[in-house]
Amino acid sequence: MMTDGRKRVVIEGLKPRIDGGRFPIKRVVGEPVRVEADVLADGHEEVSAVLMYRHSSDDEWREIPMMFTVNDRWTASFIPVKVGRYYYTVQGWVDNFLTWQKDVSKKIDAGMDVSVDMQIGAELLNQAAGRAPREKAVNLKQWAKKLNNSENTEGARLLAVDGDVAQVAARYPDRSLSVTWPDELAVLVDRPRARFSTWYEIFPRSFGKTPGKHGSFKDCEKLLPRIADMRFDVLYLPPIHPIGKKNRKGKNNAVVAKPDDPGSPWAIGSSEGGHKSIHPQLGTMDDFQRFVKKATSHGLEVALDLAFQCAPDHPYVKVHPEWFKWRPDGTVQYAENPPKKYQDVLPIKFETENWQELWEELKSVVLFWIEKGIRIFRVDNPHTKPFAFWEWLISDVREAYPDVIFLSEAFTRPKVMYRLAKTGFTQSYTYFTWRNTKWEFMDYMNDLTKTEVREILRPNFWINTPDILPEHLQFGNRNTFIIRLILAATLSSNYGMYGPAFELMENEPVPGKEEYLNSEKYEIKNWDLDRPGHLRDIIKKVNIIRRENTALQDSNNIQFLKIENEYLLGFLKTDKKTSNTILVLINMDPYAHQAGRVTLPLEDLNISARQSFLAHELLTDTRLFWQGENHTVTIDPDRMPAQIYRIQRRVKREKDFDYFM
Amino acid sequence: MMTDGRKRVVIEGLKPRIDGGRFPIKRVVGEPVRVEADVLADGHEEVSAVLMYRHSSDDEWREIPMMFTVNDRWTASFIPVKVGRYYYTVQGWVDNFLTWQKDVSKKIDAGMDVSVDMQIGAELLNQAAGRAPREKAVNLKQWAKKLNNSENTEGARLLAVDGDVAQVAARYPDRSLSVTWPDELAVLVDRPRARFSTWYEIFPRSFGKTPGKHGSFKDCEKLLPRIADMRFDVLYLPPIHPIGKKNRKGKNNAVVAKPDDPGSPWAIGSSEGGHKSIHPQLGTMDDFQRFVKKATSHGLEVALDLAFQCAPDHPYVKVHPEWFKWRPDGTVQYAENPPKKYQDVLPIKFETENWQELWEELKSVVLFWIEKGIRIFRVDNPHTKPFAFWEWLISDVREAYPDVIFLSEAFTRPKVMYRLAKTGFTQSYTYFTWRNTKWEFMDYMNDLTKTEVREILRPNFWINTPDILPEHLQFGNRNTFIIRLILAATLSSNYGMYGPAFELMENEPVPGKEEYLNSEKYEIKNWDLDRPGHLRDIIKKVNIIRRENTALQDSNNIQFLKIENEYLLGFLKTDKKTSNTILVLINMDPYAHQAGRVTLPLEDLNISARQSFLAHELLTDTRLFWQGENHTVTIDPDRMPAQIYRIQRRVKREKDFDYFM
Repeated sequence: MMTDGRKRVVIEGLKPRIDGGRFPIKRVVGEPVRVEADVLADGHEEVSAVLMYRHSSDDEWREIPMMFTVNDRWTASFIPVKVGRYYYTVQGWVDNFLTWQKDVSKKIDAGMDVSVDMQIGAELLNQAAGRAPREKAVNLKQWAKKLNNSENTEGARLLAVDGDVAQVAARYPDRSLSVTWPDELAVLVDRPRARFSTWYEIFPRSFGKTPGKHGSFKDCEKLLPRIADMRFDVLYLPPIHPIGKKNRKGKNNAVVAKPDDPGSPWAIGSSEGGHKSIHPQLGTMDDFQRFVKKATSHGLEVALDLAFQCAPDHPYVKVHPEWFKWRPDGTVQYAENPPKKYQDVLPIKFETENWQELWEELKSVVLFWIEKGIRIFRVDNPHTKPFAFWEWLISDVREAYPDVIFLSEAFTRPKVMYRLAKTGFTQSYTYFTWRNTKWEFMDYMNDLTKTEVREILRPNFWINTPDILPEHLQFGNRNTFIIRLILAATLSSNYGMYGPAFELMENEPVPGKEEYLNSEKYEIKNWDLDRPGHLRDIIKKVNIIRRENTALQDSNNIQFLKIENEYLLGFLKTDKKTSNTILVLINMDPYAHQAGRVTLPLEDLNISARQSFLAHELLTDTRLFWQGENHTVTIDPDRMPAQIYRIQRRVKREKDFDYFM
Repeated sequence: MMTDGRKRVVIEGLKPRIDGGRFPIKRVVGEPVRVEADVLADGHEEVSAVLMYRHSSDDEWREIPMMFTVNDRWTASFIPVKVGRYYYTVQGWVDNFLTWQKDVSKKIDAGMDVSVDMQIGAELLNQAAGRAPREKAVNLKQWAKKLNNSENTEGARLLAVDGDVAQVAARYPDRSLSVTWPDELAVLVDRPRARFSTWYEIFPRSFGKTPGKHGSFKDCEKLLPRIADMRFDVLYLPPIHPIGKKNRKGKNNAVVAKPDDPGSPWAIGSSEGGHKSIHPQLGTMDDFQRFVKKATSHGLEVALDLAFQCAPDHPYVKVHPEWFKWRPDGTVQYAENPPKKYQDVLPIKFETENWQELWEELKSVVLFWIEKGIRIFRVDNPHTKPFAFWEWLISDVREAYPDVIFLSEAFTRPKVMYRLAKTGFTQSYTYFTWRNTKWEFMDYMNDLTKTEVREILRPNFWINTPDILPEHLQFGNRNTFIIRLILAATLSSNYGMYGPAFELMENEPVPGKEEYLNSEKYEIKNWDLDRPGHLRDIIKKVNIIRRENTALQDSNNIQFLKIENEYLLGFLKTDKKTSNTILVLINMDPYAHQAGRVTLPLEDLNISARQSFLAHELLTDTRLFWQGENHTVTIDPDRMPAQIYRIQRRVKREKDFDYFM
């Protein structure tokens, strides 16, 4: 309590700050961190404040002066320039010179005697000189002399209220009684792909040399140009490890597998090895590394699956029986979600007494694959492992490899998903798949991008997954598929698809469930990717638009527009740095054309009502001149269920100017 | 980081919690503290949580089971029963028995084999028995035996899903891996007057034996029955200390006082003494204590003014010159707010090197008056002294005297006012005086009572003060005065008035200012309190209504009602403990009658649309039966500009029942 009682500034409500500073916020390199805080003191004196920040490898803080906004609130921004961990905090103090200047100028205005005030001001300037570097000190001392000059009181008065004097003096304030926010807040800074990525998922085993034959990494090399041509940048593979033989599941999740059923890749581990091994039919470690390298040469980064669970014949079960639950009848507990049973998978018992060795072993799995060149992990069901474990694992791994990306595959309750994001996951699966109406999307995007969630959770919108064939695709038509593609690809800067099934519009469900019939999880599929009706061209087009328009490489910049038609969803995205502005209009009705009037916030776009501007529709490559804030939109889904406009302010030429004048 | 990694529960978003737990919340004795938190774990297991609380003098925590509400949120309440400081926190754990029961009942429903599950359940019950007191342990062990009975599997199944078994088992859970919120949050618990008080302010010197003669405490004894009869309970006196003679101000703030001008009571200190002395013309310390005792016998508690500033001839200036600012010309700095000058008052320099002795001295002033029997202090301009000073002072004083009340007289920026409230002030002056329209009141009450502010700042609505003659009273009529009275007295459970001036409808301003002409601050007034037109009767009536209706003894319980007339302000207040419900309808137009339709939230009042209820108007003592949610209101301000209804649900008698059936 009895620290120096003369420190009068208080700092409150510092933002962004997650759970009182318990968790870091997230940014990518180049993405600004805007910091706000209330900085106030008792009395009527002027307060000053700086934002302080540093990379964890920096010894010293950098400072940026904060600007007063309103209601005792101050703000400043900094831009992280390298991956890793940044820290920030705020410092404030009572500024004696600025206070003096404010008061003395009022006195001068009121015609009061300020001769003694001038002496006080001169003393303050001399003190500032003592804190300033030599060249500035000279100035400050000269000004002090002029202030204290009773011969030229008029000159002194002008100098007293001079803005330049204040600016220089304010740069060398007395900060001996300054107050700093008690904590250093952290920012996890990622590489740009954390914010902008386009994922494609395949089961390599389905791309064998001949239909039905188990595919290998070598076989899959031929796929790479095709996927790259569609402008995907992450190629995600389900677990590539040996698949358990004990309790292996058959086609369509049959409890007893037939001899040649390949089993679920998520039933990891057998006598052939565990999480650090490769399923023999996929190839060798060399094959894998060659595949990763080839993918990279096509601009595709391979993402692996981290599924911390074991088949009953995983080597861990014998070596570390204490990492599993054993029942009174001597059997090991398999995963269940009563009445569902997952006999081919054992959950890990994180409450084991030997948890420390367990944690270290699991971390060693991650490091193993990092050493093989992998930098992206899609984490399977992280919500069934302790939060503390993830926080430790991700933080530890990032310490050495700050460019690693972890995608959280948790489809569970919101607070659990947010907590996982806070523990350090770089991206997160979302409820996108279960949002259908315009209002649902507006609400959900608001939750994700206009609340504190934006600081911690980077959404990755998946159109489908091997586990999820959403209802709308089951009963939808081709337009439905395109609508879902454009929703995912434009609402969210990160999106993904379980590629072959989506491209080919597979939509036969297990009756009454949101699951694929004859799921690729349990069998080798034989995809004819060139089958008529495939969606490759529109996927490619949309992905090219995403690449060419930086406004679509962010999710938090979304701004919904008012359209009086419940089927028409409209929003703007702008990249302030590049001034790239995209207007997306989607007809959520796949069957009928819909029309409505959209209102554009021209002021935000810096376009005047008297100024025409270019609306370039990118899917059809058509251009129109628009003017004013209202536009009547008609979308016929059978032509194209969405419109994606690039909005361009026109450069004014002389003759325009003449004309308008 | 590497604490026990097996602890899987996390607790988030604990509320109420001010600035991350940095500041205590406030309650009065008997007022519940409702605590909420997200309590969650990974996986699908059941979680349990308790609210823990204790008085600072208790050695052990008490526990209340928290109830799950929605979205991982849990809640429980406790009621502080004595003044001082309480602490609270939340603990959560994974409940193995409840989890087992949830899963096993699903398995039973699905007709699955549960024989091994029964052994597991029996083991869990036996473990619970080991943690339970003897009599419960016997039950638990018997149940365990029955569960594990392969002879009677039907009985075992029934027992497995039994609610009583779960309830008992859940009372003795394994909490070895429980997680507790890291901080203990504090509650400042005050006596009831902190929340419900009615203040009357007088300058004792204006009540001398003959007009113009300086009044004394003895003279003022005769006022007490009158003030008590109006049902005030706090009698607040401006500073009672010797008034400085140096630079004393004359009438209407004249810079030079005439010889018999009494000076401002806030210019404290002279050769006759300082903050621990009594102005000689008011009487002796004995006179003062006799006055306080007499007031108490009338149900009036005397509140003193704490104005930490000094007249130029205050003894501190000689003894502690370092506590003041000295100018280069050797003069001491008086208070200024350029171009305004307060030559009769020196601010204290809290940035003095000798701040510790200063703080101790100022605290000794408070303790001095506490020892003389004072328990309420109105603190003058606390926003011009450091926040840290107040936090230390109030906390230290309350440690020994938890029944002391501090009222913060800060009219300044919102964040500063809130910060002062957080440092420990019991009540605060507000912007009430400058709110005029229906919408302004609705917005402001929302800020005060429906946001976090309600936890820290108890508003005290002052109609006027010796410093403030608000504009509406300057140009208003008698109705305006009554409207302001009823607004203050019903919106806020704490309110006050600068009594004589208000009662007598004094409203002549210094031209162009919100100040009283011929202010009592600078001269002795001669009030004729029985002057025709005084407001004593309506004040008394309103104060009696406040005393008799506990719903008006709280501010946070306000609920505004929809009335489609911008002059009609309507709100409900309910005391849930006593079921006392008050409906207030105020016509903000003092000149014309206004009508509108008010919609009552009958459901909240537990009244059905088919049920008539009694609306008892308390100002006119008239009763009406009402039915349904809509009521047309007409208020003629010349009869009475407001209506205060007590809403009473009727007790149903047999014949009503017959009739309605």
